[in-house]
Amino acid sequence: MCGIVGYIGPKQAQNILLEGLRKLEYRGYDSAGLAVYQDGRLNVRKTKGALSALEGRLNGSPLSGEVGVGHTRWATHGKPSDENSHPHVDQQRRFSVVHNGIIENYMELKEELAEKGYSFTSETDTEVIAHLMADLDDGDVVSTVRKAVRRMKGAYALAIASVSEPDKLVAVRLASPLIVGVGEGENFIASDIPAILQHTRNVYVLEDGEMAVITRDGVELSTTGGQPVNREMLRVTWDAVTAEKGGYDHFMLKEIHEQPKAIRDTLAGRLKDDSVDLSWELSGLSDDLKQIDKIHFVACGTAYHAGLIGKSVVEKVARIPVEVDVASEYRYRDPILTPSTLVVVISQSGETADTLAALREAKKAGSKVLGITNVVGSSVAREADEVLMTWAGPEIAVASTKAYTTQLIAIYLFSLYLARLRGTWSEEELKRATAAISALPEQVQRILDAPEAIQRFARSIAEHEDLFFIGRGLDHAVVKEGSLKLKEISYIHSDAYAAGELKHGTLALIEDGVPVIALATQPSVYEKMVSNIIEVKARGARVLGLGLEGDTELAKSVDETITIPETLPLFTPVLAVTPLQLLAYYTSIARGLDVDKPRNLAKSVTVE
Amino acid sequence: MCGIVGYIGPKQAQNILLEGLRKLEYRGYDSAGLAVYQDGRLNVRKTKGALSALEGRLNGSPLSGEVGVGHTRWATHGKPSDENSHPHVDQQRRFSVVHNGIIENYMELKEELAEKGYSFTSETDTEVIAHLMADLDDGDVVSTVRKAVRRMKGAYALAIASVSEPDKLVAVRLASPLIVGVGEGENFIASDIPAILQHTRNVYVLEDGEMAVITRDGVELSTTGGQPVNREMLRVTWDAVTAEKGGYDHFMLKEIHEQPKAIRDTLAGRLKDDSVDLSWELSGLSDDLKQIDKIHFVACGTAYHAGLIGKSVVEKVARIPVEVDVASEYRYRDPILTPSTLVVVISQSGETADTLAALREAKKAGSKVLGITNVVGSSVAREADEVLMTWAGPEIAVASTKAYTTQLIAIYLFSLYLARLRGTWSEEELKRATAAISALPEQVQRILDAPEAIQRFARSIAEHEDLFFIGRGLDHAVVKEGSLKLKEISYIHSDAYAAGELKHGTLALIEDGVPVIALATQPSVYEKMVSNIIEVKARGARVLGLGLEGDTELAKSVDETITIPETLPLFTPVLAVTPLQLLAYYTSIARGLDVDKPRNLAKSVTVE
Repeated sequence: MCGIVGYIGPKQAQNILLEGLRKLEYRGYDSAGLAVYQDGRLNVRKTKGALSALEGRLNGSPLSGEVGVGHTRWATHGKPSDENSHPHVDQQRRFSVVHNGIIENYMELKEELAEKGYSFTSETDTEVIAHLMADLDDGDVVSTVRKAVRRMKGAYALAIASVSEPDKLVAVRLASPLIVGVGEGENFIASDIPAILQHTRNVYVLEDGEMAVITRDGVELSTTGGQPVNREMLRVTWDAVTAEKGGYDHFMLKEIHEQPKAIRDTLAGRLKDDSVDLSWELSGLSDDLKQIDKIHFVACGTAYHAGLIGKSVVEKVARIPVEVDVASEYRYRDPILTPSTLVVVISQSGETADTLAALREAKKAGSKVLGITNVVGSSVAREADEVLMTWAGPEIAVASTKAYTTQLIAIYLFSLYLARLRGTWSEEELKRATAAISALPEQVQRILDAPEAIQRFARSIAEHEDLFFIGRGLDHAVVKEGSLKLKEISYIHSDAYAAGELKHGTLALIEDGVPVIALATQPSVYEKMVSNIIEVKARGARVLGLGLEGDTELAKSVDETITIPETLPLFTPVLAVTPLQLLAYYTSIARGLDVDKPRNLAKSVTVE
Repeated sequence: MCGIVGYIGPKQAQNILLEGLRKLEYRGYDSAGLAVYQDGRLNVRKTKGALSALEGRLNGSPLSGEVGVGHTRWATHGKPSDENSHPHVDQQRRFSVVHNGIIENYMELKEELAEKGYSFTSETDTEVIAHLMADLDDGDVVSTVRKAVRRMKGAYALAIASVSEPDKLVAVRLASPLIVGVGEGENFIASDIPAILQHTRNVYVLEDGEMAVITRDGVELSTTGGQPVNREMLRVTWDAVTAEKGGYDHFMLKEIHEQPKAIRDTLAGRLKDDSVDLSWELSGLSDDLKQIDKIHFVACGTAYHAGLIGKSVVEKVARIPVEVDVASEYRYRDPILTPSTLVVVISQSGETADTLAALREAKKAGSKVLGITNVVGSSVAREADEVLMTWAGPEIAVASTKAYTTQLIAIYLFSLYLARLRGTWSEEELKRATAAISALPEQVQRILDAPEAIQRFARSIAEHEDLFFIGRGLDHAVVKEGSLKLKEISYIHSDAYAAGELKHGTLALIEDGVPVIALATQPSVYEKMVSNIIEVKARGARVLGLGLEGDTELAKSVDETITIPETLPLFTPVLAVTPLQLLAYYTSIARGLDVDKPRNLAKSVTVE
């Protein structure tokens, strides 16, 4: 999940490439680099660290020239270092390569090239590509790229500059996103649209197994096998204004606060006559939704946690059996798929590599696929049979917040729509649910308006290195997400457990003063949950209880209490997760960390 | 999950009660106590700590008398302390109560009694019972117990002595195991048979809602409502020799080493003509097994991890969709159960409260239940439609080892039998599987015979407080078990992740020198797994790779390697978990901890 840019035109490449990389920094930021062609040479500047480190180096020693490629990296092979940064070049510096993805057979290729005498300066799989091209070089850069690609296994988006044909850049895509931007007398390559939006709104989206050759004045698309490709040009109509922090210290806090709006936007137009109507959006699945006898939710990370809620909700509301899978596991476990199975894939970016692969697997097996995604035109949106968009707007912070809550809303809408189609809920029940879901934006706002108790608790845990979350039922799914948030940005080693499972082992980790965050928002398991809280209290834990407004009992068994407004038990996850998001945020701040760019992580995971 | 004993007869009660408690110590050991009647008084000695602490106190000040009750505790309400130890008495010391279980409405009862002027000396729910009986006392102990029980909600096994009728002990059971031992001129109460086995082999097993009144010469069974109960006496034929450590330093190490035998015993008589035959054992389900269209595995802790393997194996081998649930969640999630759903419950003790409740829920819904358990005559064995025994022998160490591997064997046998019944595997495939499973005992033995590399690695991680396990597919289920073992007995905060999920958050926790244990035993995901290993290596982790014998690639990407013999990929969990069990054991030893009795945990969890 690195960021790639390429430029060819009449202007100085360096600044255009840097600006582009800045817009892609959310894709990875452990190192960055540029290669620019001038006077028969490919000159490279690259360095470990954020983009600002590269800018510092370029200030001292700028790159002149009108053709070049750039890269912001999120390490996969080889740790973040100057040597491992992209672009990579071959020994004669004939080719310069930037790469997003993983070359799975790089070790085999490396050994083969090493035997031929090639020597390597980095630990990356990418450098192998540069040497491989040097080895296969026939003087024609396009033909050389084609030969090299034939030898490579894995997933990649590539942008390649050469000394032999400096008037051309070559872009190649297999399972990692890549676009070509078409300007006037200049053209662009990028991993994502924002990188080029200030220069052009005309875009070609490359598909798997395709390549583009760009010159100042033209773009030629073909398959890597050599067949010409005709693709319609996409005209991007997005708002070009960069997502800004809007007065907040960090994107994450801004995005947490955008949740009431994001939820309202995601509900808009979908609630009609005291019920849910998705008939227009899901028309392509309307027969299937009545007949399916099985649903699989498949997703990664935070979206997987939304899927866990999905299982509970769909089973309760529509009485269809549901399985939830981590996408990286699903692909390889030979899932039982039939034409009456509906696979629901969830991905904020719509480009998550494992999730996309699961989508394709399901389609191949003849099952229908519903996508839940936040990005129009993303691979998930294009390839699923139908799409339910979350209207959360761009999410920049690595730790996902508004994407998660709007994924929950999409799942609720979908479940209620299923219940209506299949008659498992009465009109009265649907009416009550519609009223309750409509109240959620205002209820989230109330939580956001009173963060003091959460800030206090965040300061009190900032010195700890271990923490546990517990919950039962839907609360269990919510604490998994709360724990992930905390881990991601505070680096506190936290875990989330089904409260009834503690006794079966994990209780051994509870010692005097360990913070435990306990959710008790589910009436049906409330008493059992209090018993579990008392168990950890008896071992010396300091417990923060999160319960419903009006609960006067919980405070008797815990050290501190935070409450959330009451709604239908089914919908509490939306309200319960909000304080946990804030807790993660304020804990990260109290520990002095970079909230929006946690170490080792990147926003959209387009490698497996 | 405390241990209860009671004695009435001609001998001194103290020593008989102490001996009984010693046999029950595996049920809990954070405090212990006795109450013995003499000359119109109930004299109590109780103390925090292991049974030896109580013995010390009794040496200084012995209890004389021929009637009494005893208790070894595993704290639920109120931390381990002298005051919270059992037996509990009322203010006038008219009643003395020992209790296993949880009184869910104790807070309400306590407030009511406090208003009447009763004052409490402990934080336990049990003390409330003693005061409640005093409040309801009508001079007849049996009638008083009946009145008290009517007010109590929750789960309990009770043994009660009184001053008013010192020639009687009363035992009551609701959802916690309790038996009565019938001697000659003496009678016994106990949570479990071993406690009384050196005195008698004649036993009544109480059922839920039943009570027993025992005197020197008689035992009377009735419901708590007052209806007489006729129960056949059970004649116990078990080997009375206590499970001994057999030359090992700890029960856990002994039990790890017993695995080849336990697996052999569990296979015995079930492999016939190059295939699996369970027709005799599962005759009551033979029609169902052909027709079921859905399986739910339900269990807790280690047995739940066996269930995770069960899902993969059954789906692969028999192509029946499977869900796996933690029992404490399953009961409350309103699972979709039909007559064509088979619920498989797994519990070593057969008394795990949440698992039992799930079993009952499933039967009530009309589904069939298969029990997998290690204890003949246990509640699971008695209540399931059919039982597949694991023949692991008694497991004393809290950290389960041989129970887990034999649960896996039972699951394999069951899956292969299903495949044979339903024709999803050919005779050739079954033959190959039968040969491979038969070789497992010898292969486990080979791992046990060469523990040096594991011992070395254990010493190297003993100083760490955090550790991560990663794996894909079946390896993911195995690392969950490996991580639980390590947590339970070494108190190292460890976690197990699906390797493909690291990028979605947890990678933030990886920093320089953090130990990571990576399993790479599954050929179908081997390359992906190596990519994930390289990701954590790139962040500075120190990686122990666990792979198959003959794998020369793995060592190139990790810091240290341990190998296991090759078998069918389906069966590797049995071999892969063995080094992880040893690792947990040797790490606990290196940290100087009590392997067999980890803090806060008890063997068999008969409360929810």
